Amino acid sequence: MAEEFKRIKRELVAKGHILDYYHDTMLIPNGHVAVWDFIQHNGAAAIVPVRSDGKILMVRQYRNALDRDTIEIPAGGLNPGEPTDAAALRELEEETGYRCERAEFLISIRTTAAYSNEKIDIYLARDLIPGHQHLDEDEYINVEAYSVEELKKMIYQGTLQDAKTVAAVMAYAVKYGK
Amino acid sequence: MAEEFKRIKRELVAKGHILDYYHDTMLIPNGHVAVWDFIQHNGAAAIVPVRSDGKILMVRQYRNALDRDTIEIPAGGLNPGEPTDAAALRELEEETGYRCERAEFLISIRTTAAYSNEKIDIYLARDLIPGHQHLDEDEYINVEAYSVEELKKMIYQGTLQDAKTVAAVMAYAVKYGK
Repeated sequence: MAEEFKRIKRELVAKGHILDYYHDTMLIPNGHVAVWDFIQHNGAAAIVPVRSDGKILMVRQYRNALDRDTIEIPAGGLNPGEPTDAAALRELEEETGYRCERAEFLISIRTTAAYSNEKIDIYLARDLIPGHQHLDEDEYINVEAYSVEELKKMIYQGTLQDAKTVAAVMAYAVKYGK
Repeated sequence: MAEEFKRIKRELVAKGHILDYYHDTMLIPNGHVAVWDFIQHNGAAAIVPVRSDGKILMVRQYRNALDRDTIEIPAGGLNPGEPTDAAALRELEEETGYRCERAEFLISIRTTAAYSNEKIDIYLARDLIPGHQHLDEDEYINVEAYSVEELKKMIYQGTLQDAKTVAAVMAYAVKYGK
């Protein structure tokens, strides 16, 4: 199907802090010309940190876009040239104060295929080792631990909605029968 | 934690087709002033259509942001004032040609809490009734059916990455032991 749509022009509208916003002029197969939104994002990595007691470490932080706190798995944008498994392990230690020798691949997601190319590679971390939390200077995070059952309940009740976290927790539960 | 951050200004940078892009000027608890991205989105609804044989209907379409076809559950933006369950049932019939009397709530997701307020309410549809597909004039969609096992495999292999679809399929599998 892909060959039927043609992008005529990609025009930068604004450069942002963590994304760039474009207008794409598209030739639709029916001959129409339409202007579509496109968000360029450099990609991110996230990690499901599983403690030896089976509980999962989550980070609570203020999210301006939702104007409230959220509970999410540790995650962050990639540094230039950084592989996603390294980024996931880096964010794990920076945000939670725990480190891990090896990130095990779980799933990849595209957060909003309708208008953004953002990809998040999500890993699992087990055998956590105490390390040192070191947050970015504008970052304020509390670390909390929840059982998989608690997280499932929060997801079905709608109190945990972050898409990468929902996808990751459920994918972990299905893969490992939790 | 929420009271420690203060939004000083929200400035419209550009109006888009399905989103508006803003720069938010934030006062960080440490006294810093930072400009953050904010994407305003009016919300969407999606639905997991389960056939009587247990297979799930998926839509294949070209996604400009990824420059390739994707496989996703039926979904779309809300019309003004439209409840999300009505939107989910409307998109089901428009995109797949099947309708359903009742949408059963499954989960809600926030696609990108880091910079957007987009919320997708995701429902289940069972007891599908043949209806009439009627796509938007710039919409080109193929309908395909997959078993839950096939979808899980595609998700773990990384060939199905759409976040709402990953979250929805896994949440359905966990809730109903599929």
